[in-house]
Amino acid sequence: MLDKLFNPRSVAVIGASQKALSIGNVITKNLLKYSYKGPIYPVNPKADEVCGLKCYPTVAAIPGDIDLAHISIPAKFTPDAIDECGKKGVQFVIINSAGFKEIGEAGLAIENETVKRARQYGMRIFGPNCQGIINTDPALRAYCDFTFTYPEEGHVSIVAQSGGVGALYMQAIHDLGVGMRFYASNGNACDISIPEILRYYGSDEKTRVIILYAEGFADPGDFMDAAREVAEKKPILGMRAGRTAAGANAAASHTGGLAGVGLSTELIFKKTGILAFRDVEEMCQAAMAFAAQPVPKGNRVGLITDTGGPAVIATDELCDAGLDIPPLSEKGTAVLKEKLFPEASVRNPVDVLATAAAPHYRAALDVLMDEPGIDSIYINFVTPPFVDTESVAKEMATVSKKRCKPIVCNYMTDKPQWTATTAHLTEGGIPCYDYPEMAAKSLAALTRYHTLRSRPKTPVTIFSDVDRAQAAGIIQETRKAGRTLLAAEEVYALLGSYGIPTASCRIARNVDEAEAEAERIGFPVVIKADAANLIHKTDAGGVALNLNDVAAVRNAVAAMTKRIDAPDLKFLVQQYLPGGMEIIIGAKEERGLGYILMAGIGGVLVELLKDVAFELTPVTASEAEAMLRSLKTYPILTGYRGRKGVDQAQLITIIQRISQLVTDLPVIREMDLNPIITFEDRVVAVDARIIIS
Amino acid sequence: MLDKLFNPRSVAVIGASQKALSIGNVITKNLLKYSYKGPIYPVNPKADEVCGLKCYPTVAAIPGDIDLAHISIPAKFTPDAIDECGKKGVQFVIINSAGFKEIGEAGLAIENETVKRARQYGMRIFGPNCQGIINTDPALRAYCDFTFTYPEEGHVSIVAQSGGVGALYMQAIHDLGVGMRFYASNGNACDISIPEILRYYGSDEKTRVIILYAEGFADPGDFMDAAREVAEKKPILGMRAGRTAAGANAAASHTGGLAGVGLSTELIFKKTGILAFRDVEEMCQAAMAFAAQPVPKGNRVGLITDTGGPAVIATDELCDAGLDIPPLSEKGTAVLKEKLFPEASVRNPVDVLATAAAPHYRAALDVLMDEPGIDSIYINFVTPPFVDTESVAKEMATVSKKRCKPIVCNYMTDKPQWTATTAHLTEGGIPCYDYPEMAAKSLAALTRYHTLRSRPKTPVTIFSDVDRAQAAGIIQETRKAGRTLLAAEEVYALLGSYGIPTASCRIARNVDEAEAEAERIGFPVVIKADAANLIHKTDAGGVALNLNDVAAVRNAVAAMTKRIDAPDLKFLVQQYLPGGMEIIIGAKEERGLGYILMAGIGGVLVELLKDVAFELTPVTASEAEAMLRSLKTYPILTGYRGRKGVDQAQLITIIQRISQLVTDLPVIREMDLNPIITFEDRVVAVDARIIIS
Repeated sequence: MLDKLFNPRSVAVIGASQKALSIGNVITKNLLKYSYKGPIYPVNPKADEVCGLKCYPTVAAIPGDIDLAHISIPAKFTPDAIDECGKKGVQFVIINSAGFKEIGEAGLAIENETVKRARQYGMRIFGPNCQGIINTDPALRAYCDFTFTYPEEGHVSIVAQSGGVGALYMQAIHDLGVGMRFYASNGNACDISIPEILRYYGSDEKTRVIILYAEGFADPGDFMDAAREVAEKKPILGMRAGRTAAGANAAASHTGGLAGVGLSTELIFKKTGILAFRDVEEMCQAAMAFAAQPVPKGNRVGLITDTGGPAVIATDELCDAGLDIPPLSEKGTAVLKEKLFPEASVRNPVDVLATAAAPHYRAALDVLMDEPGIDSIYINFVTPPFVDTESVAKEMATVSKKRCKPIVCNYMTDKPQWTATTAHLTEGGIPCYDYPEMAAKSLAALTRYHTLRSRPKTPVTIFSDVDRAQAAGIIQETRKAGRTLLAAEEVYALLGSYGIPTASCRIARNVDEAEAEAERIGFPVVIKADAANLIHKTDAGGVALNLNDVAAVRNAVAAMTKRIDAPDLKFLVQQYLPGGMEIIIGAKEERGLGYILMAGIGGVLVELLKDVAFELTPVTASEAEAMLRSLKTYPILTGYRGRKGVDQAQLITIIQRISQLVTDLPVIREMDLNPIITFEDRVVAVDARIIIS
Repeated sequence: MLDKLFNPRSVAVIGASQKALSIGNVITKNLLKYSYKGPIYPVNPKADEVCGLKCYPTVAAIPGDIDLAHISIPAKFTPDAIDECGKKGVQFVIINSAGFKEIGEAGLAIENETVKRARQYGMRIFGPNCQGIINTDPALRAYCDFTFTYPEEGHVSIVAQSGGVGALYMQAIHDLGVGMRFYASNGNACDISIPEILRYYGSDEKTRVIILYAEGFADPGDFMDAAREVAEKKPILGMRAGRTAAGANAAASHTGGLAGVGLSTELIFKKTGILAFRDVEEMCQAAMAFAAQPVPKGNRVGLITDTGGPAVIATDELCDAGLDIPPLSEKGTAVLKEKLFPEASVRNPVDVLATAAAPHYRAALDVLMDEPGIDSIYINFVTPPFVDTESVAKEMATVSKKRCKPIVCNYMTDKPQWTATTAHLTEGGIPCYDYPEMAAKSLAALTRYHTLRSRPKTPVTIFSDVDRAQAAGIIQETRKAGRTLLAAEEVYALLGSYGIPTASCRIARNVDEAEAEAERIGFPVVIKADAANLIHKTDAGGVALNLNDVAAVRNAVAAMTKRIDAPDLKFLVQQYLPGGMEIIIGAKEERGLGYILMAGIGGVLVELLKDVAFELTPVTASEAEAMLRSLKTYPILTGYRGRKGVDQAQLITIIQRISQLVTDLPVIREMDLNPIITFEDRVVAVDARIIIS
C-alpha cells in the first residue's frame, strides 16, 4: 500500500524556494545531494529555478506523472494544494508544514479539511507537521526529508512520530557506521499511521531490524495488531518515553494526551513482542548487533579477552543483565591449555593475554564455537602496538562469517590509526563497541530477544462456568441505584458468578445480627463496616480482625457505629484466616487498550516497595504465571526459609478469571481483590472493591 | 615526591629494540611520536641505533643524567638493570616487563629482589608489569608508555592499576575531544602506589578532575587517607569493578585477592568523597562536564529544547537521577512569552521550537541564568538546516563563558557538516553529548558531586559511658574457654557495657527455673534455647514466642529439650514485645578496613528484598542517619499509613555505639543485633550474636 511513498518514481516540492534557510529549499537540496534517481519538480510561482532545477508555477504545469509531492507552504494554503495534487493524480503527499492540529482548534480545522479533500482523490497524506521518508536503495536514493543525516545503505529501518527522536536515531545509527534501509517520521499522522508503516517494514525483505519510538498511540489496538504481526517476522526495538511522572507530562503535552503514555506502552511492547529499551544509545547500539549477527539460542556467554580489567567490567555487566558465564568443558579447556600461552587463563573468561596473536584468538574462538554449553561470544580486543592485530581481526572475521553463534566485540583502539584492523572486523560483520558495557548490553539485547521470541504462547482461556448474565444483572442494579461503587454483597455475588473464591461472608444490619452471624460462621471472625460511600474501610476504622468471642464482636460493632456516620451502615461478618500470605490482584480500565491487570504481594511493606506486576487484558495462563514470577517477592510464593508456599495455580486462575470478567463487563472502571489470603492449598479473597462507570 | 616521574628531563629505554612488535620499540617510538622535549637514550648492547636514535650498550655509557628509565627486558635481568640504574643515579624506573608477582612465587621473588635493590639506591619503582605514565604538558610531552592514544593537553588526569581499563579511559576521553593532563597505570604497584599518585594529582594545579579505576587496594587505609585529602580539593570520579559475584571473582583473580573488591570499594568511595560510577562511558562523559563547567548549587534544572521528543527523554532521565524540573517564576515566564515565538512553550522544559534563532535561545538562556529557582541548564540542540545554527552556538558560548551555572548540551547534529557550529560550542566550554540520556546523566553527576561535597560532616562521637575493660574481660573469658561464639549471657553483658539496650533476660537451666524466671518477668514471655554450638536458634526450633502462661512455658522448654541435643543447653527467658518494627544492625570485619556496619529492617520479606544499608567504621551520627534514610523502607521508620514511627535517634546511637564497640575490640569478627524491636519511644535488642576470632 505504501509502496509509492517509499519508492516514488518522481517527486514534486510544492513550496520549493531559493531561500537557503527554508524547508522547501532544504528538501530540494537533500533530494539532489542524496542523488535521487527520479525527476524532481520544484513548484513555486515566484521562481524560475530552484537549486539549479527548472521550477514550475503550478502542479498542473509539471510535464510528467508525480508519485509523491512535498507540501511546504503555509498551512492555510494546504487544502488548495491538495486539490491541485489530486487533479494531477498525485498518489502521496508529505506535508512538512506546521500550523495544523498541534497549534489548536484553528489548525485542527485545516487538518480535517486537508484530509477530507485528499480522500476525495484517493490520495494518502503523510504528516502534516512532519519530516518525511528516506529510502537508501541505491537504485532510488529517495531523501524526501528536511533532516541532515545522509545514511549509508543497510538493514535498519526507523519509524518515529517524533521527528526529533527519529533524527537522533538516524544520526546515531549513521555515526556507528551502520547502514539504514528506511526512515519515516510522520508528525501529526493525520492519515498514514505508525501501524501502516510498521507493516510495510515488516514485509520489506531488506529490513532486518526495526527501530521504533513511541510516545503514545492514536489507535492502540491497531498498533498492537501490526506490532504483533511484524514482531513474529523480525526484531522490533522500541523505546517508550514518559516513564517518570514529569516525562509522562512532557509526552502528554507533546502528543496531545494520546493513549498509552507511560506504563501501558511498556505493557503493549511486552504483549506484542517488541524488545523494550530505556536508552537511545543502548537501543541503537543493539540495532548494530541485530543487523549483523544471528540470535543466540540461550544465555550462556563465552568471553575472550586480551586484558584483565575490561573483562571484569564486562563480567559485571553481563551478569547484571542476567547472562551466565559458565565454566568450559574439560575438552575445551584442554584444547585451550595446549594452544594458548602457558600464562593464559583457560577458564571463562578466557584471557589470551595482551601478547596473543592470530592463532591464539582462533583457537579460543573455535573452542567457544564448538562448546555445546556456550550460546554467544563476547570479545575484549585491545590493539596492543606490539601485536599484528590485522591478522587477529582477519581470524575473527572468518569465524564471524559462519554465523553460527553471535559475536560482539568491545574494540579498544584508536580507530584513525587501526583502519586496516577495523576494516577486517567490519567486513566480517562483527559489531564493534567502544565500551565493554555497551558490547555486553548489546549481547544481552540479542539474548533478551531470544527469550522474548521463545516465551510460551498459550491461548486465552475462556472459563465456561461463569455466569455472565448474573454478573451483568448485578451491575445493572447498581447503576439503577445511581451508584458507581458496588456494595459488599454485590461484590461477593459478582465474584462468585465468575468463580472467584471469597471468604464466607454474611451481612448484619445491627449488633444482634452480627453476633448471630459470627456464631454461625464460628470464631474467630472479622467484622467490616459497609456503606455506599465508604471506600477506605481501614482508614475509617471500619475493620476489626481476630474477634474471638461474642463480647469482642459486640464491642467492635459498637465502636464502628460510633465512628462511622452512614445511614446505610451494615456489617460484614467473615471468617478470620490468620497466617496466610496477602496477595493483591486488581484491574483498571485503560483507554483504547482494555484493562491493565495488576498482581502483587500485599501488606504495608510491599506497598512501599511497589512489588507488583502488570499485564494488559486478555491475560493468558502463561502471562499470569510470568506476572507472579516477575515479583521480587516471588520466592515467598514458592516457599521461603521454612515458610510454606502458596497455591499458585489458583492465583493464576483468579488472574485469568478477572481478565475475563472485565473483558465481559467493560462497564467496570476498576476493581481489586485486596487482600486475597493465600495458603498452601487454599486461596480466598477476603475483601474486594468494584467501581463502575 | 613524584615530580621527576611525571616531569622527567631525560628518559632511558632499557631494552629498546629495532623489532617493530616489541615493547621497547613501541616506547621509544611513542616518545618520538609525541615529541618528547628531553633526550631519549635507547639502551641495547646489540644495536647501534633504535628508531633513528643513537643506542647505548649500557646505562653507564649514557652521557647525561637520567631522571627516568624504562625497563622492558625479561624479568630475570631486571635486578641487575636496577643496579646499573642505581649506579648511574637514575631516580625513577618504570618496569614495563611482565613475569613478576602476577605469575606466582618465582616472579614474586624477582619482584622482591628488585624492590630491595632499588631501595639501596633510594630509587623508586613504577610497576612492574605496567604501562607507564604520560604528561601532556606542551613544554615536556612525556609519553612514557606503550599505549597508542595520543591525547591533547587538558585537565583530566587518569589513574588505573589495570592498564586495560586505563587505556580505555584515555581513549574515551580522547574520542570525546576532551584534553588530558596526566596518565598513570602502575600494574603490580610494588613501590609507587595509587595513593601516592592521587596525592600528586591532587597537588597539580592543571588537574581539574581525576578519573580512577579500582579493583582493590593493597593498603586501604592509606588509599582512604589520600582520597579524602584529594577529594576535598577536586572531584575524583571512581569506578568499582566486581559488583556481581562473577565480576568479583574475575577481579579477585586479576588482583590476587586484594582487600576492597566489591561492596567495600563502594563504601570506601562514599566515605572518602569519591563520586562513584558503574559505567565507563558514563564516567568519561561526566568527566567532560567536570573539566569545563562549574558545579551546580542544587538539583533544580531548567531545560531549553528545540524539539519535543528528546525533551521527553531528557525529562525522564533527569527525574530518574533525582533532579527536579521546577516551574519557572512568573517574571521569567513573562519574559519568555514576550521574546519567544507565540507557539513556543514557556514552561520548563522551554521549547523554543525548531525554527528558533539566536535571539530566542539567548532570551531563554538569560531567563534561566537569572531564575533563582534554577541551578543548572540542560539544552537539547538539534541543528535544523533552515536555521543559522552558528549564531545560536555563539550565544550559547557567550553565556557559558560567564560560568555562573553549569550548562550541558545534547547536541544532535552531523558533526562533519556542522563544524563551525561545533567549534563555537567547544570554544565556549559547553560539553556536547550525542544522546539526551548522556547529557542528563552528566548533569546529574555534577549535581551528585554538589550533594556529596555539601553533606554534613559530623565528628565521630566517642561515648564515655562505655566500660571497655568489662567488655574486653568478657571476650577474654570466652577465648579462654576456647569458644568463638559468645554465650547469651556474655552477649547481653557485653552489649550492656556499651550502653546498648537489650530486653530483660534471665537464664534458666531447666524447666523449673524457666517457669520461675517467666513469673518474675511477667507474661507474655519468649523462651530461647542457648548452647555453645547453637548458632541458628530459629532453624533448630529453639525459639518460642508469645508464651502466655506457665503451661506454655513448660511445653516450650520440653519441646526444645527434645529437639536440641546439647549437653550445655540452657534457656533464655525474655519479656515478649509484640507490635514493634524489627530492625537489624550488624558489623563484620573487613580486612584492612575495620568493619562494615549494616543496618536494615528485619523480617522475612525485607530479607528477600535486601533493603539494608552499609557503612565503614567509624560511623558518625550523620552517617548513621544517612544509612537509615537510604532504606527503601525508611518511611516505615518515620510513620507510614497510620502506623507510628520509631525512635530513630536511639537507632542512630546504637549504630554509633556498635561502631565504637568493634573499633575498641577488634578481636570481634562479626556481630549482629537481630532483631532490635523498635517502638515510638523505645528500642530494644531482643537477640544478638557475637563471633570473635
